[in-house]
Amino acid sequence: MFSETNIRKKGIEVCFSPALFPFFNCHNKIVVIVDILRATSVICSALDNGVKTVKPVAEVEEAFKLREAGYLVVAERNGMIVEGADLGNTPLIYTDGKYAGKSIALTTTNGTKAIEVAKGHENKIIIGSFLNFSTLVNWLTDQDDDILILCAGWKNHFNLEDTVFAGAVIEKLINSGNFSTICDSAIASLELFYKAKNDIFYFIKDSSHFKRLEKLNLIDDIKYCLSFDKTNVLPILRNGDLGDLNKSN
Amino acid sequence: MFSETNIRKKGIEVCFSPALFPFFNCHNKIVVIVDILRATSVICSALDNGVKTVKPVAEVEEAFKLREAGYLVVAERNGMIVEGADLGNTPLIYTDGKYAGKSIALTTTNGTKAIEVAKGHENKIIIGSFLNFSTLVNWLTDQDDDILILCAGWKNHFNLEDTVFAGAVIEKLINSGNFSTICDSAIASLELFYKAKNDIFYFIKDSSHFKRLEKLNLIDDIKYCLSFDKTNVLPILRNGDLGDLNKSN
Repeated sequence: MFSETNIRKKGIEVCFSPALFPFFNCHNKIVVIVDILRATSVICSALDNGVKTVKPVAEVEEAFKLREAGYLVVAERNGMIVEGADLGNTPLIYTDGKYAGKSIALTTTNGTKAIEVAKGHENKIIIGSFLNFSTLVNWLTDQDDDILILCAGWKNHFNLEDTVFAGAVIEKLINSGNFSTICDSAIASLELFYKAKNDIFYFIKDSSHFKRLEKLNLIDDIKYCLSFDKTNVLPILRNGDLGDLNKSN
Repeated sequence: MFSETNIRKKGIEVCFSPALFPFFNCHNKIVVIVDILRATSVICSALDNGVKTVKPVAEVEEAFKLREAGYLVVAERNGMIVEGADLGNTPLIYTDGKYAGKSIALTTTNGTKAIEVAKGHENKIIIGSFLNFSTLVNWLTDQDDDILILCAGWKNHFNLEDTVFAGAVIEKLINSGNFSTICDSAIASLELFYKAKNDIFYFIKDSSHFKRLEKLNLIDDIKYCLSFDKTNVLPILRNGDLGDLNKSN
């Protein structure tokens, strides 16, 4: 009989930038894509409010091409809606169910680029945000695979809000007793979450993207994106589309 | 007359990996290279103890070629001395002055690669370690240029000890009143330093490179590399060689 210490603990790593992803081995790992402000929050909010599917694409042109196939174009660059797009990158526009039944083509400065670099590596790609925090953590806890959290960052730079979220996930996973980490990025994320946890909004108020969105009068977006457990959707990438894992076969 | 708030504060940024360096604008900035365990500690220790010059090179082959020109070959990969090298990557071998007057060709897994990516961008390249901490900070405070701290990391991964050092530097610079930052990596470094400062050795004991060096029985190296202000050298890169700024014209 194995003693408890002989049971293999599952690994957790954090990648702070899409540009660092090639230095990680992601084979057979669950890759959790995180772009708190705001792409992964938007994906969760859209699917929670009846949007049928979200197709993430790296380039604006690809999103506009999908309009011909009936997709609504959600396109953001530098925090702002791309000219000609149907909708901007805000999670709040979905909450009244106005876009239920629609399909969305989504392209953003960072989040959809992160999905793009993680694709095609024989791994599961899952979307994480504070909005679906507990659903995500409970599901991850039940899986057998190691976990790699990929922070979308800002134009390949490290960012604070994605890191704090990674730390929040890691705290729960480590506390479950079934995970351990030897990854310095994961240790740093956890330490930063400990500092932030009492008031995440306050903790990130000097961060670059907070200030960028503040200038664009998007404080309500920030507050919403920092809200825990607004939904129990678990977006997963399948054949290029993001849909709720709980609703699929 | 300008009020104090109108005086431009100098900027501080932190780059967590050589692979992220291309995403920073380093023009006219002072780039501080940091590889606490152990390359930048070795450079400080060597120059402090009479070594004439340290030539950092990215590849082992380049270091061996320099032997013909009279250089001692200091070569490390994966924490260990490279077969055939004269010396390994440890700061303690210089402290008795045995290598005074010698020239060294240095190649390491991370530190010399970081120097390599930062070269040739019309910037000043300075070497930072806990060993020359106060000398570095005082000099940086007196300069007019913005500062970019480049953490060597581990094989392009983020690491904890370089980040904590960056945070220590940032604390002093911010406290001087002449610096500010809008860089999330700098904010995170500072927060991590706050957590670490009472016992840095303890704080990094779960980090990947601590464990790697611990397995190689190099705890004494770690302790030495975490010692503040053992020297007042300030290594600067000039024409491909690192020498003490205080001793040059």
